[in-house]
Formats: sequence, C-alpha cells, structure tokens
Amino acid sequence: MALGQLMLVRGSVKYVYLDLPANLACLKNIDNLLRCPICFDYLNISMMTKCSHNFCSLCIRKFLSYKLLCPVCNSATAELDLRNNRILDDLVKSFQAARQNLSKATFDSPPISPKT
Amino acid sequence: MALGQLMLVRGSVKYVYLDLPANLACLKNIDNLLRCPICFDYLNISMMTKCSHNFCSLCIRKFLSYKLLCPVCNSATAELDLRNNRILDDLVKSFQAARQNLSKATFDSPPISPKT
Ligand SMILES: [Zn+2]
Ligand SMILES: [Zn+2]
Ligand SMILES: [Zn+2]
Ligand SMILES: [Zn+2]
Repeated sequence: MALGQLMLVRGSVKYVYLDLPANLACLKNIDNLLRCPICFDYLNISMMTKCSHNFCSLCIRKFLSYKLLCPVCNSATAELDLRNNRILDDLVKSFQAARQNLSKATFDSPPISPKT
Repeated sequence: MALGQLMLVRGSVKYVYLDLPANLACLKNIDNLLRCPICFDYLNISMMTKCSHNFCSLCIRKFLSYKLLCPVCNSATAELDLRNNRILDDLVKSFQAARQNLSKATFDSPPISPKT
C-alpha cells in the first residue's frame, strides 16, 4: 500500500505520491523534508539559500534565472548566496537505503500463524 | 540491544552510543549524520559553515572563540559565516519520533509462536 498527501502548490492542490508502505508511515515527515519544494523529488545536489531553504541545484538555478527570490519565502536571493548543503545529499542516500531495508524486513518477516 | 560505534575523536578513540535496537541498525547512518561532530549529541540549533559542515550553535560558537577554523576540515571560518540549517532541526525531531514509533512497533508486534 502506498501513501500520498494533498499539498497546496502555488495555488493548486496536488497529490504528492510518497511511495511508503503503510507500516512505515512514521517515515513520512522525514521523506517530506528531504524533497525539493520545486520538483517534489528527493533533493539532488542540495543548495541552501540565505533564508535556510533547500532546493536541488538545477531547480533553484533555473528559478533564479527568472526571479531573484526564494520560491518558498520570497526573500531576495541571488545565485551567489547559494551554499551546498551536502549533509542533505548524504541523508537522502541513507534514507532511501534505510527505507528499502525496513520495507524488506517487513515483507520478509514470517506471517503471524492463525490459532489452530 | 543497543548499538555503538568506535570513532576517532581528535586523536583518541571514543565509543559513541547510538541508542538503536539491533533491528533498526539500518537507521544508524541517518543517526550519525544528525549528530554534532563536537558533542556527539543530536544537532541542537544546527549551524552550517561555508565549508558545509554542521554543528550545534553553542558548540561551534564556543569552538570559534578559540580558533577561527572549522573543527572538521580546518577551513578558515568566522562566526559571521555561520548559517542556520533549520531543516536539520526538523529532521532531528522527525527522526526521533520515527525511531520511537518503529521501536514501539517492534516491541508491540506479537512474538512468533513456537511450533507445537
Ligand atoms: Zn528539485
Ligand atoms: Zn526562503
Ligand atoms: Zn554539539
Ligand atoms: Zn568544514
């Protein structure tokens, strides 16, 4: 079973697919935090703005070529202010591995035997 | 059962207590990433240096009052260069909640009945 979540995205409601089995629903918050607010995929080469918001490197650079604002909070932002947030790239990798492991553990565990 | 890890800390080997049951060992990497390299506790008001290293606000400020270097990579670092890395504070909270949930789920699940 997969989980999803309705999110308000620039004025329109989108269903964001979370790809987590129901028993791992408690990982949903971590999953959300590790996604880019522009493309909704996991952060890919995370860059942090001065206002502490994080985006994929390509997503935020493309955005800033149109508007010099943070897409989350509208603070003035320039490409020069971006700083690599490398720990998020490591967290994405570790989270994906852990999630896979926990799902596997769930599916591999023997079913509860019915009372006879 | 708890897990720990031997780490080299400024020349001396320390045993870092990880506080994870064995079946949650796959969360060890995430746990490590969310800890401060100075105090080894979970990051508390995370601050990121220009060189992308993260510390508790108090830990790094205390350190910089002695030496204007990053404790991890020795890059020149000043207090003015520090930037809040708020997503890490949120990740610490979500991770602690998820870990507790997963441990609880493990302890609450019925034991496999022995074959009679
Ligand atoms: Zn993106
Ligand atoms: Zn912002
Ligand atoms: Zn610390
Ligand atoms: Zn550093």
